[in-house]
Amino acid sequence: MGMVGGGPDAFIGAIHRMAAALDGEIELVCGAFSANELASVEFGKALGLASERSYGSYQQMFIEEAQLPKSQRMDFVVIVTPNHLHFPVAKMALNNGFHVLSDKPATLSLAQALELELEIYKSELLYGLTHAYASYPLIKQAKELVNAREFGTVKKVIVEYTQGWLAKNEISKQAQWRLDPKQSGISCCMGDIGVHAAHLAEYVSGLAIEAVCAELNSTNPERSLDDDGCVLLKFHNGASGVLIASQVAVGDENNLTLKVYGEHQSIEWSQLDPNTLFLKSLNRPTQIFRTGSPCVSRYASDATRLPAGHPEGYIEAFANIYKSFAQQIRAHQQHKQEYDLGVPGIREAIRGMAFIESVVFAARSEQKWHPLSLLPQEALSNE
Amino acid sequence: MGMVGGGPDAFIGAIHRMAAALDGEIELVCGAFSANELASVEFGKALGLASERSYGSYQQMFIEEAQLPKSQRMDFVVIVTPNHLHFPVAKMALNNGFHVLSDKPATLSLAQALELELEIYKSELLYGLTHAYASYPLIKQAKELVNAREFGTVKKVIVEYTQGWLAKNEISKQAQWRLDPKQSGISCCMGDIGVHAAHLAEYVSGLAIEAVCAELNSTNPERSLDDDGCVLLKFHNGASGVLIASQVAVGDENNLTLKVYGEHQSIEWSQLDPNTLFLKSLNRPTQIFRTGSPCVSRYASDATRLPAGHPEGYIEAFANIYKSFAQQIRAHQQHKQEYDLGVPGIREAIRGMAFIESVVFAARSEQKWHPLSLLPQEALSNE
Amino acid sequence: MGMVGGGPDAFIGAIHRMAAALDGEIELVCGAFSANELASVEFGKALGLASERSYGSYQQMFIEEAQLPKSQRMDFVVIVTPNHLHFPVAKMALNNGFHVLSDKPATLSLAQALELELEIYKSELLYGLTHAYASYPLIKQAKELVNAREFGTVKKVIVEYTQGWLAKNEISKQAQWRLDPKQSGISCCMGDIGVHAAHLAEYVSGLAIEAVCAELNSTNPERSLDDDGCVLLKFHNGASGVLIASQVAVGDENNLTLKVYGEHQSIEWSQLDPNTLFLKSLNRPTQIFRTGSPCVSRYASDATRLPAGHPEGYIEAFANIYKSFAQQIRAHQQHKQEYDLGVPGIREAIRGMAFIESVVFAARSEQKWHPLSLLPQEALSNE
Amino acid sequence: MGMVGGGPDAFIGAIHRMAAALDGEIELVCGAFSANELASVEFGKALGLASERSYGSYQQMFIEEAQLPKSQRMDFVVIVTPNHLHFPVAKMALNNGFHVLSDKPATLSLAQALELELEIYKSELLYGLTHAYASYPLIKQAKELVNAREFGTVKKVIVEYTQGWLAKNEISKQAQWRLDPKQSGISCCMGDIGVHAAHLAEYVSGLAIEAVCAELNSTNPERSLDDDGCVLLKFHNGASGVLIASQVAVGDENNLTLKVYGEHQSIEWSQLDPNTLFLKSLNRPTQIFRTGSPCVSRYASDATRLPAGHPEGYIEAFANIYKSFAQQIRAHQQHKQEYDLGVPGIREAIRGMAFIESVVFAARSEQKWHPLSLLPQEALSNE
Repeated sequence: MGMVGGGPDAFIGAIHRMAAALDGEIELVCGAFSANELASVEFGKALGLASERSYGSYQQMFIEEAQLPKSQRMDFVVIVTPNHLHFPVAKMALNNGFHVLSDKPATLSLAQALELELEIYKSELLYGLTHAYASYPLIKQAKELVNAREFGTVKKVIVEYTQGWLAKNEISKQAQWRLDPKQSGISCCMGDIGVHAAHLAEYVSGLAIEAVCAELNSTNPERSLDDDGCVLLKFHNGASGVLIASQVAVGDENNLTLKVYGEHQSIEWSQLDPNTLFLKSLNRPTQIFRTGSPCVSRYASDATRLPAGHPEGYIEAFANIYKSFAQQIRAHQQHKQEYDLGVPGIREAIRGMAFIESVVFAARSEQKWHPLSLLPQEALSNE
Repeated sequence: MGMVGGGPDAFIGAIHRMAAALDGEIELVCGAFSANELASVEFGKALGLASERSYGSYQQMFIEEAQLPKSQRMDFVVIVTPNHLHFPVAKMALNNGFHVLSDKPATLSLAQALELELEIYKSELLYGLTHAYASYPLIKQAKELVNAREFGTVKKVIVEYTQGWLAKNEISKQAQWRLDPKQSGISCCMGDIGVHAAHLAEYVSGLAIEAVCAELNSTNPERSLDDDGCVLLKFHNGASGVLIASQVAVGDENNLTLKVYGEHQSIEWSQLDPNTLFLKSLNRPTQIFRTGSPCVSRYASDATRLPAGHPEGYIEAFANIYKSFAQQIRAHQQHKQEYDLGVPGIREAIRGMAFIESVVFAARSEQKWHPLSLLPQEALSNE
Repeated sequence: MGMVGGGPDAFIGAIHRMAAALDGEIELVCGAFSANELASVEFGKALGLASERSYGSYQQMFIEEAQLPKSQRMDFVVIVTPNHLHFPVAKMALNNGFHVLSDKPATLSLAQALELELEIYKSELLYGLTHAYASYPLIKQAKELVNAREFGTVKKVIVEYTQGWLAKNEISKQAQWRLDPKQSGISCCMGDIGVHAAHLAEYVSGLAIEAVCAELNSTNPERSLDDDGCVLLKFHNGASGVLIASQVAVGDENNLTLKVYGEHQSIEWSQLDPNTLFLKSLNRPTQIFRTGSPCVSRYASDATRLPAGHPEGYIEAFANIYKSFAQQIRAHQQHKQEYDLGVPGIREAIRGMAFIESVVFAARSEQKWHPLSLLPQEALSNE
Repeated sequence: MGMVGGGPDAFIGAIHRMAAALDGEIELVCGAFSANELASVEFGKALGLASERSYGSYQQMFIEEAQLPKSQRMDFVVIVTPNHLHFPVAKMALNNGFHVLSDKPATLSLAQALELELEIYKSELLYGLTHAYASYPLIKQAKELVNAREFGTVKKVIVEYTQGWLAKNEISKQAQWRLDPKQSGISCCMGDIGVHAAHLAEYVSGLAIEAVCAELNSTNPERSLDDDGCVLLKFHNGASGVLIASQVAVGDENNLTLKVYGEHQSIEWSQLDPNTLFLKSLNRPTQIFRTGSPCVSRYASDATRLPAGHPEGYIEAFANIYKSFAQQIRAHQQHKQEYDLGVPGIREAIRGMAFIESVVFAARSEQKWHPLSLLPQEALSNE
């Protein structure tokens, strides 16, 4: 694989490299780590890359890599830049024949996401989106339990994603671009973490968000984007939901929790203790499902590397995306049609951007409910 | 004390009696436990009451008790009936010279609550409201921590109160009257538990809810009242909040949790583990405060009966209200002015009814935000 | 009931009074709270006792109370003094016709416990021992789960009881008598809390400790008694066990945990979260049993006062002993034979004293294993 | 690196490969994965190795690898075989010029460990032992907190390591060799997991175990080795300890917990929640240290890859050993003397084997205490 972004200061780049390396199936062969060519080459060298495979721009990388013999060139590119580059990099990669694995949010706007869909369609190439939290083994298990007959119809979803790091006044480099509309898009908190929560809610419940009522806050007068918010949700089956997201929840680290309530059962999961899943019932003792235990389903087991009681974490969840994406690429190379192997793709990218735009639009409105529109919100794109 | 309601099927009556008995300061001397006089006498006998002190109606009780010599008659009445009787019983008690301790919600409507305020004022008697959850020792501690300078301005409050018992289709006696507008009022879920959550949020944060955006659900088509809902909150200082309440959250028992986030610190507490309170900070390790430990403040210690590590529970929290109310009565008897000893009173009763009415009104509206009005919501009272 | 001990400084006396009062079935009618008659009367007055029912010595109390008409005199005495008085007070109470409820350890020595057994037999009266931790509802549930066929033979028991309060150098009044052999007996830590742990292990497992290997420590050179220790256990069915007890485990409050492992299942319980019980299995998800839930057995439900999710604590567990002892007394008064209603009695008193003596003896020995002898340890009684 | 053992059925081999790959610094270049040469080659191919670098025996591997030019040959070998091969493989590796990283227990006997020490000394090469649990970031933090002045002298250590997988009657391949004395040595449970617990206790407390009192059990009559046991510990400073280890604790996964109590503070950590560490104090609120938080020390941070709230697990802890061992090798190559970078070595290997032999010897004795002898236990080596 090749990497765009992910230079020395970008913690997410290192995570991607560890996740890709974990299973010994994927090799980093080239990268455009920095807009400064020297810095990029230097950094690539530290990662063990040959100098000629580290580039000062993604454009250069795609052009030069495309000219290499197929056996040498990268199979896919992973995009770990600030948001505003996700779309142009992905588009150019596809146009040059490379599969794309991209950080979320997929693009800067819903309009871009729809354009990206077209590019993917034309290219006949693969596109994956790294909603890593959905790749924890017990999220797979949760999805199966929720879909089971005994669970009954889903009635309510509560998803909460709170962090505290933006409560600090000193702004780190990580914070800087997320709070800059030019690099981040129309939302900071919802674009950065709310979109993860929305994806998790839809993925596990199997329901689509149909309408939102939103409130967004910016707790610091110097910020033009939201750092906190709450969204009431209506799902297509009539279920209700609440999505809480905050980056100014002082003292919270990366607190993503999901509760899905059905007619007869409910599930509860927290990313801070990702190897434990609770299944609650009306008249039976709550059951605890554990990663790696013989009680979890095959689908969850396949996403597990260790025996129960040996904690697996975020890198392992992330690595599950890489593993599945690599499988997809192999299937693609063999002209097999079985691509859906658990990697979120352009459909999730579009829904994510629709969620962000609808929430920002709804937050500015005095009206309570707004449809989660899969059409771009004109009022926003004009700004 | 005397009791109105709380007969054999009413679990809350037994809790009140245990809470009142715990500290050996309060004696149950009379009761109108049932509208059936024989049943009331029978039940009173089982509680050790003399036959002539058990009555078939609260009216009879107030009239007869008022004629007893002061040393024999009850000092106060506790009202543990379904909601629709709270107001008439309280009013008649005050008119006959008895202090009142009442279950929440205080009345059937905000208009009644305002009328009750007038009655209390005229009677020069005491009125207490059993928001028992606010009487846990660590809720006192939480309030102090939140008010401390190091905490900084409160920015966000998340309060969640979820139960699952109304998810069952069979309707228990407890459920029946709560779902009947004539006995319960205009709301089931918000009136029964949402009002507890709202009180806790205001009590600990020290902030007043100023506006609400609400969604209420009735998950069962045969129900005319809400059994689930979510309310977005705006506080008077600009802080935002979320209040989630549900009685159909399958598998949840009595899950009341509170998180208050300030500029520099935050607190987290759950009623299911009421003897543990977390104080989180931006750059310091999270601290755990524990009931009975030498680290809690005097105010919290005063509400504690046991050394740390000997769990105190719901009855003890409830008993704190009785203990404080008894202290108030003693102060009143001695014409002292120091009444505010931690028992919620008519102010909280009015705010609670305003909360319920505002939320029901807001839930029916297509407009997003509505003020938390201390004036009755006309649209509702007309129904 | 009457009370011996439990004056103003004795926290355990207050707990007994709250526990006795909780269910409204037991009334405190007399007491010998202090060796100082004036102090005793003063204290009794604060508790609402008539002056003539507060005594300056237990001898006086028994003599005078015995002369009252049956309807007025106390039914039983509760003994909440330092250990050295447990035996003489109990003996004199029995000799004067009063049932006895006693704090643990039952006596100062195994020899005394055996003598007490004889006195009880001769008196035909009731004797109860307040091993309160065994009265938590979920301990009843645990016992039933362990005894069920699916559990299989018990293989291992791990019980841990750690406190930190004796790590302080300043010695409180509570600490003083516990560390004084004349008042406390031959052991501090094992006599005070180890004996609780041993009882819990035998009660839930249904097994008898047959042999012990013990190590006792005194972490402070000024102390002549143990404040810490560990005991390896052999049970009569061949199962093994470990009992850890410490009063110098800095930062631990009152951390009593029990794990019982069988062939096919195991249970885990902690007194700090007494309303949660884990049932683990070889190939099934762990199940969580909760106090008050519809999933617990009738036996556990009978020891429960509140619906699930309303935490019950130590006072409620303690009150279960009082409730059962009151039932025993009523059955005794009606000449019924069904006395065994869950109150530990003289059998448990003897086993407890045998445990303490055997452990102290074993700790002094260089030999590894020693039988848990129901005969007094000569070497110890000679000291 | 090269690998001996770790073929298709061996789960630990896969863990080693993931841990080695994680940071992108170490490449697997050769292996003797199976005694069957074809199987070894096949397996190596699946791992991406050239056929000529997969061998049918470790002997062959060392001989052939030693003949490769330095730039191509492996730098070190990792030994992931059953226990009986650890020593001969390590010895031959050292004799052929390769550094050694070995699974625990280091050898089959203390005598072998002492011989190994000599071989290492003569070879001037590096030797590491994969006590992975000690490589969790918060174990580093715990060590620092325990060593700090505020902690005071260590008084007590409680370490518990319980698993349930050997409670099953069907014996997996993993179980088979562990229960076979020829492959496993003189102990199953103590050799497999007890030795981890002992290492952790000594590492964090900074104390050396000086004497042991031990009980070992075999819960299944067909087993000649222990599957359960408990060891009382005396440390060189007079502190006491308890080590519980079991592989038949039904329902426990991999439950390793450590508690260290000092004069003024104590720490508590559990491997099942490895990113949380509790620091308890006599008179201050308990503090929670979290992996990745700004509150942990540099030493702990250096062992961390992610921001707080992104769980790190067992593979990451294991990878810390590889990272440190690679650093050691680089330092060795540059003739630097700063080898001690957190990898347990031959000292820990010798202490581990002394622990195992002393415990087995003590368990067979009727005497209570036995020194932890660094001399081989004659009685055992004669068997």
